Amino acid sequence: MADMRLIVAGAGGRMGRTLTRVISETPGAVLVGALEAPGSELLGKDAGVLAGLPANGVALSADLWSMSAGADGILDFTVPAATIANVAIAAERGLVHVIGTTGMSQSDDAVIRSVTDRAIVVKSGNMSLGVNLLAALVKRVAQSLDQSFDIEILELHHKSKIDAPSGTALMLGEAAAAGRKIALDQHWARGRDGLTGARRAGDIGFASLRGGTAAGDHSVIFAGPSERITLSHHAEDRALFAQGALKAALWAHGKKPGMYSMADVLGLSD
Amino acid sequence: MADMRLIVAGAGGRMGRTLTRVISETPGAVLVGALEAPGSELLGKDAGVLAGLPANGVALSADLWSMSAGADGILDFTVPAATIANVAIAAERGLVHVIGTTGMSQSDDAVIRSVTDRAIVVKSGNMSLGVNLLAALVKRVAQSLDQSFDIEILELHHKSKIDAPSGTALMLGEAAAAGRKIALDQHWARGRDGLTGARRAGDIGFASLRGGTAAGDHSVIFAGPSERITLSHHAEDRALFAQGALKAALWAHGKKPGMYSMADVLGLSD
Amino acid sequence: MADMRLIVAGAGGRMGRTLTRVISETPGAVLVGALEAPGSELLGKDAGVLAGLPANGVALSADLWSMSAGADGILDFTVPAATIANVAIAAERGLVHVIGTTGMSQSDDAVIRSVTDRAIVVKSGNMSLGVNLLAALVKRVAQSLDQSFDIEILELHHKSKIDAPSGTALMLGEAAAAGRKIALDQHWARGRDGLTGARRAGDIGFASLRGGTAAGDHSVIFAGPSERITLSHHAEDRALFAQGALKAALWAHGKKPGMYSMADVLGLSD
Amino acid sequence: MADMRLIVAGAGGRMGRTLTRVISETPGAVLVGALEAPGSELLGKDAGVLAGLPANGVALSADLWSMSAGADGILDFTVPAATIANVAIAAERGLVHVIGTTGMSQSDDAVIRSVTDRAIVVKSGNMSLGVNLLAALVKRVAQSLDQSFDIEILELHHKSKIDAPSGTALMLGEAAAAGRKIALDQHWARGRDGLTGARRAGDIGFASLRGGTAAGDHSVIFAGPSERITLSHHAEDRALFAQGALKAALWAHGKKPGMYSMADVLGLSD
Repeated sequence: MADMRLIVAGAGGRMGRTLTRVISETPGAVLVGALEAPGSELLGKDAGVLAGLPANGVALSADLWSMSAGADGILDFTVPAATIANVAIAAERGLVHVIGTTGMSQSDDAVIRSVTDRAIVVKSGNMSLGVNLLAALVKRVAQSLDQSFDIEILELHHKSKIDAPSGTALMLGEAAAAGRKIALDQHWARGRDGLTGARRAGDIGFASLRGGTAAGDHSVIFAGPSERITLSHHAEDRALFAQGALKAALWAHGKKPGMYSMADVLGLSD
Repeated sequence: MADMRLIVAGAGGRMGRTLTRVISETPGAVLVGALEAPGSELLGKDAGVLAGLPANGVALSADLWSMSAGADGILDFTVPAATIANVAIAAERGLVHVIGTTGMSQSDDAVIRSVTDRAIVVKSGNMSLGVNLLAALVKRVAQSLDQSFDIEILELHHKSKIDAPSGTALMLGEAAAAGRKIALDQHWARGRDGLTGARRAGDIGFASLRGGTAAGDHSVIFAGPSERITLSHHAEDRALFAQGALKAALWAHGKKPGMYSMADVLGLSD
Repeated sequence: MADMRLIVAGAGGRMGRTLTRVISETPGAVLVGALEAPGSELLGKDAGVLAGLPANGVALSADLWSMSAGADGILDFTVPAATIANVAIAAERGLVHVIGTTGMSQSDDAVIRSVTDRAIVVKSGNMSLGVNLLAALVKRVAQSLDQSFDIEILELHHKSKIDAPSGTALMLGEAAAAGRKIALDQHWARGRDGLTGARRAGDIGFASLRGGTAAGDHSVIFAGPSERITLSHHAEDRALFAQGALKAALWAHGKKPGMYSMADVLGLSD
Repeated sequence: MADMRLIVAGAGGRMGRTLTRVISETPGAVLVGALEAPGSELLGKDAGVLAGLPANGVALSADLWSMSAGADGILDFTVPAATIANVAIAAERGLVHVIGTTGMSQSDDAVIRSVTDRAIVVKSGNMSLGVNLLAALVKRVAQSLDQSFDIEILELHHKSKIDAPSGTALMLGEAAAAGRKIALDQHWARGRDGLTGARRAGDIGFASLRGGTAAGDHSVIFAGPSERITLSHHAEDRALFAQGALKAALWAHGKKPGMYSMADVLGLSD
């Protein structure tokens, strides 16, 4: 099979540069487009050079329609508004659209689902093997334990992260809620501060730490009477997530249109 | 449903007193008998008072047959000889028999199995819900991940503990080995010290910390390329084992005769 | 010296019962009064029985003035309004007032300071040796490291705790702020949730976990470029704090009126 | 103040390239020379390009004397013979000489000390800020706490590491032993396995975990009655050592000639 021709969205950002580097190290994948926001001062720069590589002749551009003419997929770790703007074009072009963007609203998700008759979407709050395995464990434990075990989710990320809890923490919360057969958004406890009162039985709590350059740590704590079980994931390097995204793209290449998860990619689905 | 009527075996001992306290705090359970060895000077004493509670009118007695007439179950953390003596009566009465006694021989186990056409037995070498759940998770993760993930087991116990690794650490190691379909004693790495050379692929490593009054912490680490998954258990105090036994008794109440494990209680059986 | 005659405030609560038990185990201390809120249904009950001990003849009462006539000190882990109500009487009687109450406002603190010409007050967000030692370390590290290290404070407490962050977490935050020579309340980041934006340089972050029966864990994280230092304290048992309060009371007995800290009690002051 | 003009020794090696990158990211520092061994095939190459950066016009050269005419300091993570060769020139030029080279003999050290009337030397076996700070804290805590607190040292490193405990773990053990005024090699407990008996009072325990690609985690645990203090360091990647060296150079710029340690840089000296 010919190399999969990929576009990196947000190619001037930190994650975008990492994706460019990982593509250059991955057999079977080749960079053919580098998308950046209109007005960015990086437009026209060489994506390879930006990623600390030799020049690769792919200049940053804001025109997804043009660059996607000869592409097979797009790797998109940007912001919700940008991702939504990319969805329609990716669908029209029949691209594999790997979405690692976090902070998407329910209406954003509805837009994505509306195109999955044509587009091949892989969407996940986290592209690593470890986190997806962790989510499967969390669901199982939440099923096994009753409400005498309180579920708490803790995450630590670098100081530049702009949202809290992390998309991955929310994904782990969804796994816990699924295990308990409850709706997460009716049972979460977020941003505890001040006179909170005693913990509400059945809640799923979230806490967020920010600092330094941490690539991302997550812990799900099941705190019961006189004991605690903690399931944790530690990412050493954000290249881990880029590698997962590449694996997802290569897996999805040639699949039928539809919405897929990393659990599908990794063979972890129940 | 009416409260489950329970007998505590070894009611004068440290674990027996803890069981009495935990029953008094558990809705749906009530203490109806307190068994102690014939000749004990505690016979006739009030079980509540011994447990640091108000008197509850249940006097310690050595006569299991009489006290079990109106009972539904017996919680038994004693010694093998005592447990074996209790097995026949528990079976005859159709009691739930929760056995946390350790150091049982294979012939002891055969005696227990011989009555499981009539008795409802829940037996485990570790009555903590959390550790049993952890073992099931460890087996599953060891199955899911290949040898690019190294398995390491860490435990911390109080300064008086005389063996290393802990029995629970070895139990978790057995779970990991079962998941990988290997024999633990051919793949363990214990007591690393000095010029060890690089880690042997496929090994399961153990490390032991000792200090203070820690009731017992265990972690199983799956360390792979650029990421780590860690599954941990933290015990706050010994009441934990009593709580696990209570949960087992309430779960087993009304079940068919047979031999059950904590994995059955937790819904963790494969 | 005669035994120090102590009153426990909030004697019907969880911490109050623990204090009653610890007093009964501590040579040189004796319980002479048990204070409870007016209207409590526990008024008139025996403090010993409530604490799971034999009756000790000290009935719970709401009348601090009467019970303090023959007392030397009061141990007060209650709520701000109750503590403030106790301050004036303790001062008038010349009692040692050990205050472990958290969530006090600046005006509450002003009230306390206003009586320290007559009262002997020991006040701390945490009465354990370990936490006070940790606070001294945190101050030192915060002095040593510049703002390229982000300071984050994490705490985990049992599900019944009603305020967040814990008083101890705030005390550790004050130590960090003192090390940096900044005012904590102008640099804290509490209750992160939603689109927070990137971390503000120089902030001290707080995150709170709640669940189960945890006596109290605290971590102070210094997250810098490519490395993290974490200073942690783990309390196994709330008796630790009661023991610290007793130690403080015995230390303060006979001292001059004034405001003291656990650093004074433990000899950790710079 | 003008930018500090720095030379990287061993500029073609892995650590040298990392130093070049870190200098390019550090305000107040500029690369003016790139030293490589005579005969290296990299002589004449551009140091920026070798480091995966745009060309910076600094060509690798073996002539330290010439390149140091306009320099303020040299960062030297090489081998003992090379470092000793650099010492005399650095002293003659009055450079700040930051030495991270390991495996130096006592006679090597004597050579370095012989020039510290003219040279400004910062030397440490571990250039990580965090580990040096941790060692100072460990010494202080070991001084503050009596033997009712047991000291345990845990480390985790990648699967290729061939010795246990790590050199850094032993350095932390030395700090603990110094705080207690004991000899480490008479009080260590290493490689616990089997029937060890109860922990010997006053011992310092070590445990080693190996797996995956971990850059290096260290924890020093002080485990006492009902509480534990844990002081930990987590290294994300090797850039950490380069960042420590840069910080040392900037700190030493303008200092009096002499021999300094990372403890001096951090203000941790007693």
